[in-house]
Order: sequence, then structure tokens, then C-alpha cells
Amino acid sequence: MKINKERLKKHLMKLGSIGYTEGQGITRQAFTPTYEEAKKYVRNLMENIGLKVYEDSVGNLFGKLEGKGKKKSIIMGSHIDSVPNGGIFDGSLGVLGAIECIQTLMENNHTTQYDLEVAAFIGEEGTEVGGTFGSKCFTGEVSFQEKDIAYLETVGISKEDIRSAKRSPKTVKHYLELHIEQGNILDTEGLSIGIVKGIVGIAQYKAEVKGKANHAGTTPMHLRDDALVKASKVINQINEIVNQLGAPLVGTVGHIQAHPGAINVIPGKVDFTIELRDVSKERVETAMNLVKESCKDLNLSIEKLEYEWEVNLDQDIQSEIEKACKDLGYNYKFMYSGAGHDANPLSKIASTGMIFVPSKNGISHAPGEWTEWEDIDKGVNTLLLTLLHLDKE
Amino acid sequence: MKINKERLKKHLMKLGSIGYTEGQGITRQAFTPTYEEAKKYVRNLMENIGLKVYEDSVGNLFGKLEGKGKKKSIIMGSHIDSVPNGGIFDGSLGVLGAIECIQTLMENNHTTQYDLEVAAFIGEEGTEVGGTFGSKCFTGEVSFQEKDIAYLETVGISKEDIRSAKRSPKTVKHYLELHIEQGNILDTEGLSIGIVKGIVGIAQYKAEVKGKANHAGTTPMHLRDDALVKASKVINQINEIVNQLGAPLVGTVGHIQAHPGAINVIPGKVDFTIELRDVSKERVETAMNLVKESCKDLNLSIEKLEYEWEVNLDQDIQSEIEKACKDLGYNYKFMYSGAGHDANPLSKIASTGMIFVPSKNGISHAPGEWTEWEDIDKGVNTLLLTLLHLDKE
Repeated sequence: MKINKERLKKHLMKLGSIGYTEGQGITRQAFTPTYEEAKKYVRNLMENIGLKVYEDSVGNLFGKLEGKGKKKSIIMGSHIDSVPNGGIFDGSLGVLGAIECIQTLMENNHTTQYDLEVAAFIGEEGTEVGGTFGSKCFTGEVSFQEKDIAYLETVGISKEDIRSAKRSPKTVKHYLELHIEQGNILDTEGLSIGIVKGIVGIAQYKAEVKGKANHAGTTPMHLRDDALVKASKVINQINEIVNQLGAPLVGTVGHIQAHPGAINVIPGKVDFTIELRDVSKERVETAMNLVKESCKDLNLSIEKLEYEWEVNLDQDIQSEIEKACKDLGYNYKFMYSGAGHDANPLSKIASTGMIFVPSKNGISHAPGEWTEWEDIDKGVNTLLLTLLHLDKE
Repeated sequence: MKINKERLKKHLMKLGSIGYTEGQGITRQAFTPTYEEAKKYVRNLMENIGLKVYEDSVGNLFGKLEGKGKKKSIIMGSHIDSVPNGGIFDGSLGVLGAIECIQTLMENNHTTQYDLEVAAFIGEEGTEVGGTFGSKCFTGEVSFQEKDIAYLETVGISKEDIRSAKRSPKTVKHYLELHIEQGNILDTEGLSIGIVKGIVGIAQYKAEVKGKANHAGTTPMHLRDDALVKASKVINQINEIVNQLGAPLVGTVGHIQAHPGAINVIPGKVDFTIELRDVSKERVETAMNLVKESCKDLNLSIEKLEYEWEVNLDQDIQSEIEKACKDLGYNYKFMYSGAGHDANPLSKIASTGMIFVPSKNGISHAPGEWTEWEDIDKGVNTLLLTLLHLDKE
């Protein structure tokens, strides 16, 4: 049983045209009219193939096909919102791929043991209230501040709506998400399928190096305490330590500012951000301790901003995905996701699996995002076969 | 013959109160009402001791005492404008110290061979038209752009005014400037007098390091091209190379910006400034060539912004200052000025000397600028004795 590659392509191109501008990619953020248009397109698709469509109180969209009587759902899905100037596959592939799987099953008169649901979660990409908004509401994992609530009210969502969107975990058997990798590992290694072992945790820090601001002309080198020279050493240390500890750990200094920031003044203070990601909180903490230890003479202070810890995906599902790849003859690798997904919250209420397809040159969240149609086809067939394997339990 | 320390202190404190706010220092930029008030105070002082006062067409203020007939002037001076939130001695000391020297001579019925002039040059600190405005007009070293002229017209200065302010070099024998060091060399070494050998040249550059912007989570370390990691290496290289080449060379990266500058994006481009100062243009160029060579694999590009080359001060005057220090029993050292002064333009039309007194902790251009009264006294006595030595020629 194989999916209809051309039909899927047509739907991806059609959905991908909503909010699209040539050269500028897709701009289709949650709670916008463009987003509503995309949701309507997906709703029609679901209805046309005979799914029972339901939108919850925060805007998550579901299409359901009943199975043979096991009163739990295998949910397949992702999101249909985008970042500003994003690509056409990020999220949409997981939603339209799931619909294509169900349509293929129906055409083959295959009725599953479990109920099947396609989910299009709202606000996976960051909005004013952060990312994975819809899936967090769905799993009940929400802790919004007053300012978030105030924002949500402007888009017609109340506290009560958030509470109502919570689904009982008892109704969910598995969650499966097909997504583009957004990194360059599969593309670099020439592989078609990534079997996701886990999603890295993200630790963000605010760092400050203090020195002494002084006249850049009258202060000789041996009497300087240059905060930027010291911060440069810290940045190199972070890079070296992260490289030594090895993958999947990554470390990034993305923002830096020297004070006062004038061409003729020795910087007295430098602020910068540090982001560390790994599947082990301990390894992140080890890295940070090594950085602090190696920079202890550099007047460095570090403040934790946010932790969002790692998710380990279900090992049985990983095995089923691997079996599917072998059956289909697709090359694959086990890997970690460096970005967060709707699978993060879902993994807290159901056994969860993720399938990656390659991103050309690792580009995502940019107009240059692309995945070859052949890999799209392979990804959805892997999703379908995994679903069939899991349904036999 | 010694100056009147208490009288000088009184005048410095009084002039230092114009534009002063407790904790905020002095804000007394050229072409402001506060500046006019300070100029009026100095004019009155000059007139009260019997100097012939003259203000030129751009606002430079002079007080003259005729000598025994040598038709040339020994000019002593500096400036009475300040940076925003500056200190009370920067500039003012050179002007009020010169008036104190002349008053002391008059009280001792000493008439010099040469005419004596005190000069308070306008706009030494940067304004919209750059620094050392008044002294550049005085020496005729001006090349203003249209936008500068447009600005000057708003403060009542025309092209003709600039031309008229030029003094014939034939009328000037020497220029002597007493100034605070603005660095921490004298203070660190416990010395009272700096004999300035020269003023460093300043070379400013705009640098850019290119990498590849990418997702900070999904891009593994070995597939990154992080512009900030590379820029950090460049900054460390600059620091090491400048240290190796040795004093008086100094090198500073004062401003830096990473693009796009988000906590979760690998920087694709980093812009920063480089400033190098030395008394030898060749050494600055050597340093820059070593930086380029050592960073040739880091995708670094460097654009020259401005050069303002070094000034070597008169060696005979340096010897006279040294003799004065020895006669007076003051400890001293020969040194370079890391900052520009009115002495830069003046050195192009007359043999010029500069005397430094210590800046506590090297602080200047900030409310914390300070010089001990004892060092103020020594500086002005050194100026007076140097003047007497030079007048005997």
C-alpha cells in the first residue's frame, strides 16, 4: 500500500500558496486571516474524504476516522502556521501527509483497530505567548502569565477556552509527527529518513563580562581591563568546550553588545546570550560548569533565562519506524531533533514518534526551505507503514 | 618664582562650576550658552590682570601681554569646552594655568623678551564638525564639507569667519600646552609630570566577518560557520599582535554587532570597529598586516575609515621642560599622548611642547576625572619655568 504522491504534491502546493509571496516564502502566523484561510482549506480536505471534523476552543483542528472499536486514537499531525517568511513544508507536511495516509487507507478499504485523527495544532511557531501554543493547550500543559492572557483575549481566546481545549490522555494511544529536519544532517549524509530518538532540551542564559571602560588612546595595553577581549575568550571557550563534549550538544552565542560601544572607548561591559541544547540536562550543566571554570578569571556572570528540557521519544515507535524504513528500502538514521515540535507536549500524554525528511542545505524558517518530492513521498510512506505496524498491536 | 596655588585653585573651582552638576560633572560644549558664560569668566580674568583681550572670528579667545620687543608670541593655552559629563580640569587647566603664570610674572615685575599670549581655543572636544575646531581655524588647517559649513552657519560662523581666524605663523614663536594626561601611566607610576614626546596617530577601521546564519538547534557544531566565533578569534588576534608589537601601540575593538542577533540563530555576519594608535604610521600598518595575515582563513574584510597621523613635539622644548622639572625637583617621565589636543594643529605652525599632570585612575571624559591639587601646582610651576627658559633664547 503506497500513498498517492501526485495528489499529496497538489495539496502541499495549494496549501503552500496561502500566504506565499514569490521570493519571500510563506507568512502565515496563527490568529491571522491568512491562517484562517489555510485552516479552511485543510478543513475542506478533511471533510471531502469523509473525516469527522472538529475544532476545539483554542483553534486546534481535528479530522477523525473511526476504527474497529478500540476507543483510543492514534493521532498524526503537526501545524499549519508558519514563521514570517518561512517555507511551505514546515508543519504542513505533517498535517497533509497524515490526511494522505488516511485517504490511502480508505481507498484500500483498510479499517484500523484504533480511531485515527489528523491534528493541525495552532501556534506551533512562536507568537506573543511562545511556541507550541495549541498542543500545550491540548495536553493541558499551560502556565500563562497575565500579559499572555491579555494577548490571547485580543484574538478571542479566554482562560476558559484554554481549559476546555484539554484532551483526556486516556483517549490518545499514540502521536506520530512527520516533519522536515530543519538541519543539514540528512542532506549532508545523503539520507532520506531521520528516526527521531529525542528532542533536545534548550537552556538559555544571559551572560555579562565586566571590565573597565577607558580611553582607547591614553590607556596603554598593560593597564587595560577590556571586557570585549575577555568576552571573546569566553565565546571561544564555549565553542571549544561544546565541540569537545560532542554531539548532540550545540552551543551558540547569537547576540552580543559592548558598552558603551564607541569606536574610541575600551568596552567596560559586554552582554551576550548563550544557548545550549542537548538531550541530557546533565551534559548541558557539565558544559556550563566547564565554561564557568575555564573563565573564572574573566569576571563572567551568567544568569539562567529559560530551561525547556529534553524529550525522549518512544523506543517501540522508533523500532516500528525503523522496520518501516527497512521494509520500504529507504536509508535512514537515528538522530535527535535540535528544534522543538508539537511532539514535545504530546510526548507527555502519549507514546510519541517523529519522522524527519531532509531539508536542502539545512535551511528552514526562510524562503529557501526545500525538501525533494522524492523524500516527501518516502516520508509519508514511512508514516503510513509505521501507522499500520502500530495499529496491529 | 612660584605661582599662587590658592588663587589658581579658586579660579579652577569657579570656572569648574559653570555647567557643573553634582555627580554628573561638567557639560559645557562649544557654541552653547554655558560655554559663553565660561568664556566671559575667562575674559574677565584676563582683563582684570591687564591683558589685552581679543576674540577672533570663530570664537577663539586670546589675552596678550607685550614683551620687550621681540615681535613674536609664546602662546600658552588649551580649551574651555568640555565633553558631555566631563571633568573640571580637561582643557581649563591649560588656560587658567597660563593666566596664573602671567599674573605671577607681573607680580614679580618680570617682563619677557617675547610677547605672551593665553589662548582658549573653541571646540577642542568633538562637535558636529569634529575636534580641535578652533585651533584648526587658527592654524588654517581646515577642510570642511558642505554639511559642516551648514552646521557652522547655524552657530553663526561663515566660511569667511573661518578664513579670517587664520593667524600668520610668523607671529608665533612657541606653543605650550599644560593638560591632564587622561591616561593612567603617571598615576600608576606615582609621577607628577609627563613630558610629551609626541601625540599618537589614530587609524580607524570598519571590520566585517562573514559566516553562515543558521538554526542554533538543528545545525550540529561540525556543520557550522559561526561568524561570532570567528570574530572572537580576530579580536583576540588583534589584542595579541598589539601587545607583541609593544607600546606606544594600542588597539581597541570598541563596537561589535552580530547579525541577525537572535539568541537562537547562529550569527551569519559580525561587524565591529578597530582603532589603532601609535606614533609611527609604519607600526600601525605592520600591526594591521599581521592581523590580516593571521586571520586570512576567517573571511575577514577591513575598510579604512580615518587616519589622523602622529605629531612629534619639539625636542628642544622637551629638554627645557626636563630642565624645569629637575630645577623644581619634580619626578617626571617622557611619554606619548594617546589623545589628540590643540597641540596637534599648533605643532604644524610653531615649535610646540606639552606638559602632562596625572589623572587619578586614568579617568577622563567622565565625572570621576580628578587631579590632585599638588600635581596641579607642580604642573603650572613647570609651565612657568619652561616659559622662562624658552624666553631667554
